[in-house]
Amino acid sequence: MTTHQPSAPMGAAQALRASLKSPGLTRVMGAHNPLSARLAEEAGFDAVWSSGLEISAAAGVPDANILALPECLEAAAGLANAVALPVLADCDSGFGNVNNVIHMVQTYEARGLAGVCIEDKQFPKLNSFVEGNQDLAPLDDFAGKIRAATEMRKDLVVVARLEALISGKGMDEALRRAEVYERAGADALLIHSKLTEPDEVFAFREAYDGDLPVVVVPTTYNQVTVGELEERGFAMAIYANQALRSSLRAMRETLSRIMRDGTTRHVEEELASLKEIFDLQRVPQMLERQARYEELGRDLAEAGR
Amino acid sequence: MTTHQPSAPMGAAQALRASLKSPGLTRVMGAHNPLSARLAEEAGFDAVWSSGLEISAAAGVPDANILALPECLEAAAGLANAVALPVLADCDSGFGNVNNVIHMVQTYEARGLAGVCIEDKQFPKLNSFVEGNQDLAPLDDFAGKIRAATEMRKDLVVVARLEALISGKGMDEALRRAEVYERAGADALLIHSKLTEPDEVFAFREAYDGDLPVVVVPTTYNQVTVGELEERGFAMAIYANQALRSSLRAMRETLSRIMRDGTTRHVEEELASLKEIFDLQRVPQMLERQARYEELGRDLAEAGR
Amino acid sequence: MTTHQPSAPMGAAQALRASLKSPGLTRVMGAHNPLSARLAEEAGFDAVWSSGLEISAAAGVPDANILALPECLEAAAGLANAVALPVLADCDSGFGNVNNVIHMVQTYEARGLAGVCIEDKQFPKLNSFVEGNQDLAPLDDFAGKIRAATEMRKDLVVVARLEALISGKGMDEALRRAEVYERAGADALLIHSKLTEPDEVFAFREAYDGDLPVVVVPTTYNQVTVGELEERGFAMAIYANQALRSSLRAMRETLSRIMRDGTTRHVEEELASLKEIFDLQRVPQMLERQARYEELGRDLAEAGR
Amino acid sequence: MTTHQPSAPMGAAQALRASLKSPGLTRVMGAHNPLSARLAEEAGFDAVWSSGLEISAAAGVPDANILALPECLEAAAGLANAVALPVLADCDSGFGNVNNVIHMVQTYEARGLAGVCIEDKQFPKLNSFVEGNQDLAPLDDFAGKIRAATEMRKDLVVVARLEALISGKGMDEALRRAEVYERAGADALLIHSKLTEPDEVFAFREAYDGDLPVVVVPTTYNQVTVGELEERGFAMAIYANQALRSSLRAMRETLSRIMRDGTTRHVEEELASLKEIFDLQRVPQMLERQARYEELGRDLAEAGR
Repeated sequence: MTTHQPSAPMGAAQALRASLKSPGLTRVMGAHNPLSARLAEEAGFDAVWSSGLEISAAAGVPDANILALPECLEAAAGLANAVALPVLADCDSGFGNVNNVIHMVQTYEARGLAGVCIEDKQFPKLNSFVEGNQDLAPLDDFAGKIRAATEMRKDLVVVARLEALISGKGMDEALRRAEVYERAGADALLIHSKLTEPDEVFAFREAYDGDLPVVVVPTTYNQVTVGELEERGFAMAIYANQALRSSLRAMRETLSRIMRDGTTRHVEEELASLKEIFDLQRVPQMLERQARYEELGRDLAEAGR
Repeated sequence: MTTHQPSAPMGAAQALRASLKSPGLTRVMGAHNPLSARLAEEAGFDAVWSSGLEISAAAGVPDANILALPECLEAAAGLANAVALPVLADCDSGFGNVNNVIHMVQTYEARGLAGVCIEDKQFPKLNSFVEGNQDLAPLDDFAGKIRAATEMRKDLVVVARLEALISGKGMDEALRRAEVYERAGADALLIHSKLTEPDEVFAFREAYDGDLPVVVVPTTYNQVTVGELEERGFAMAIYANQALRSSLRAMRETLSRIMRDGTTRHVEEELASLKEIFDLQRVPQMLERQARYEELGRDLAEAGR
Repeated sequence: MTTHQPSAPMGAAQALRASLKSPGLTRVMGAHNPLSARLAEEAGFDAVWSSGLEISAAAGVPDANILALPECLEAAAGLANAVALPVLADCDSGFGNVNNVIHMVQTYEARGLAGVCIEDKQFPKLNSFVEGNQDLAPLDDFAGKIRAATEMRKDLVVVARLEALISGKGMDEALRRAEVYERAGADALLIHSKLTEPDEVFAFREAYDGDLPVVVVPTTYNQVTVGELEERGFAMAIYANQALRSSLRAMRETLSRIMRDGTTRHVEEELASLKEIFDLQRVPQMLERQARYEELGRDLAEAGR
Repeated sequence: MTTHQPSAPMGAAQALRASLKSPGLTRVMGAHNPLSARLAEEAGFDAVWSSGLEISAAAGVPDANILALPECLEAAAGLANAVALPVLADCDSGFGNVNNVIHMVQTYEARGLAGVCIEDKQFPKLNSFVEGNQDLAPLDDFAGKIRAATEMRKDLVVVARLEALISGKGMDEALRRAEVYERAGADALLIHSKLTEPDEVFAFREAYDGDLPVVVVPTTYNQVTVGELEERGFAMAIYANQALRSSLRAMRETLSRIMRDGTTRHVEEELASLKEIFDLQRVPQMLERQARYEELGRDLAEAGR
């Protein structure tokens, strides 16, 4: 679904590229629909993450490539159209083989996304926090995808996500792949970890001696701060699922309260007002434009008599 | 987007029909995506309302027919596929003329919706709580749409929504139209009001002496209770936007808190866990089925040697 | 996109099942949009094939899983809604692993398809007539998918397509897999061949001593007749791409002729009339219904004064 | 659905603008899917018309706004992605009021369309060649839409289509509206006629003394030639439905022939070859790229050991 801010593909990719290279930490908030993307923009985040977990959860299906490219693209494009911020799209393992990756890069760039992130797992992937098949893709296969993505895009940022630590393949494998993906042309590396302490990602950041910006997703090691991450030399942090998780908690409590009370009165003070919704929908701007053009239309018709 | 519960069109419509005729008040919760629909089911509501306001707000556009039939249908079908509850779809004023209404009835019924609700306003409509054009549709025009909808559906429930009180046309007009819509074949009447007291809808319920079940949407008169509504003889109450409003408030606070704190640690206790999300995505059921069929596949292949 | 004939899922599957078991050869025509499906119905075919080749070609992309499940489903559902005939959907290799197959079966059945056909190749697949990777899926993997599909469907027909002859694995492998897929629960077997003579499929039909109906796709061995196929005991023939191929040839000639002539006059007699198009769009029926309900609306409003 | 040629919005609109201003007649061919758009490009046409009649006919529904904006946009964007030619989109009467027109302009421009054409009829519109309601939109209403469209677009070409002759309002009304739409900011005027002789459009072209390029759709007056139209000073001719009409005729004959013959052998010489289809799908290019990146991937992995 689309909104009132037609996207400027080039601009978006360049903005994301610039912020990856800027000295400070780029803060990225995960979103699952245009409304949550606007809240991220309003809160001051630098970019929006089109989160595979959030989008599949909102759709009520597992984060396991049950949603296919068209559904992920439609959701991501909806975010890109809703905000002025660049949007980085979670593209799982690239939706298939190298042909699918090329199709992905071209369609995502055409829809105004700033960047795509693909992870070095098999298709279909399984969410990294779920116990199950987390096997890595063959190195040659994934390296070819990164090279294809970076040769076939115009300006789109291509982030290579390393799952070696998730899959239990260890630090050496993570570092070896980091080096290969860098040579393949990746614009940035995302090192993923599900430990409850950031030690593992800190160790990677220290050991990695390449030139690419390094991205982290502090979901399980939530104590880490922006200050620490900047100090350690990380380029970007993605808060990948907190928006949906707060929304879920709030709806769950509100709905059972309404059922229990038999009225909404007691939850009212915990609800956003209708005006807050209308403002986020840009209703005032619509009514203003409508009035303006209806009047201009009358003037033009008058002059035509 | 779709999920793991293929819909049973007929069953859904019959379930909604039955609950409209049952003695107690049918409690319906508005939803904007499959996840929120599952929370409504979990909380014990009787049905789900595919809310035009919630769905357009989630999409970041005004509730003014900026979203067209395909987007509203896709969203509504997503809810119907996600829950076992019947889903009643907010269909604004029917998306155009009588031909569009016929197309609407046939496509919504084919996608597993239990019912549709159309309001007697012009196309494009404007949300009833927004100051602006709230003109009523000509009576003959809307009566023809109700008749077409009820003759062209197989089993789908058709609710006629009365906007006379919203548009300032008054109680007599509301009652006159109620009678006409009943003769046209409507299955139920929705009397809409934006007063902060329920007096207006109470007055309508008292004055209306037809046989159709009467539905209310207690958004502004939120003090009204299930008990009062049952006592007054209402058949159904739709809580049309509270889920989105609680979600919006929570996300807004969580996101600014994360930005302010530079870490998610302090918001963690207000967030649903990843496990809660995985459970609502039905991840455990998926992994179980996957294991089962991978094993059966091995056995079948073995026997084929 | 949708039309004026809401589908009856159960009915469709049962009709296809019945015609697979009927003595004569079931003749199935491939289609790529609702218009071509209606032409197949008009010509007297027994069923419609939602052709992966035709649909991807119409979309301008290779038949290699560039189109994903949602696009294939949307196209197939469009055919099912447009005709009273049962529609059998070409589902390539099932769009991923067993979880994707289960999602496929449930979503295709919910959208009114009569049956699905999955082939025992890897994901992403490549059209069987293209030189390239035609490797077979591991037997255990595909057998598990067939079992999952047949256990998770309500009534949907599940056709197992054998690619052993295409992939060069030979007749023994084709027969061995046929037996396994039958035990796995398949409703029918499709034996595919790209030879210019039907000998290979005849040999399979003779050697296969199971109980499942056998389906062929006489694209390259186009000399084979309905009589021969019935005589040999085949249950169904799918003419999988001739509609698109005739359309392509005609458009190519017409367009270059218009460019060359600088007028459409000389091609007019080779064009269908506007009336033929309006009739296939069901315009007369729409106008009739519109007039009827506008009049009924006026009567109802009149009575309400 | 999308293809392998990401669109360049700006470029497309500028190309269409330039060709409207160029001395010769711009020849535009109607298309209903990416395949037919590629045939138009191959035949040498200057631009592609995203034809409302063709697209609704292909979908099996009347050309009467049964398809809504999202379906028309998806179809038009599919054409724009499939060819290097600029695509002008038939947008009926703008899908609603001025708010819908603004949404339309922004979404169509974001999807790579070169231009949009809106006609001065009511919503929902009815195809101009069908007997029925062809009432004009109020002048002020439509003038306001043109002004809104031209102020809210970045570069998109906005064509104002005059239906005065179709609706029987006559030449004076056509000319009066032409003048108003020009003042409102339209980039071009489309004068529509359903006479079997071009006299009416010739008369308009002579009488209109404004500065906008004038476009015609020679469907019923098919004897008119490119030479005549250039001589008379027309800027563009749109062959709006011939591609679909030739396709329909060919498929209808081919299908009944196959049914009658019980074999496809006798129609084979009237069918495009599989190779022609694969080439239009760009299969060779895909296989080449796949081979290239699989090899590069192996080299990169090798170097990583």
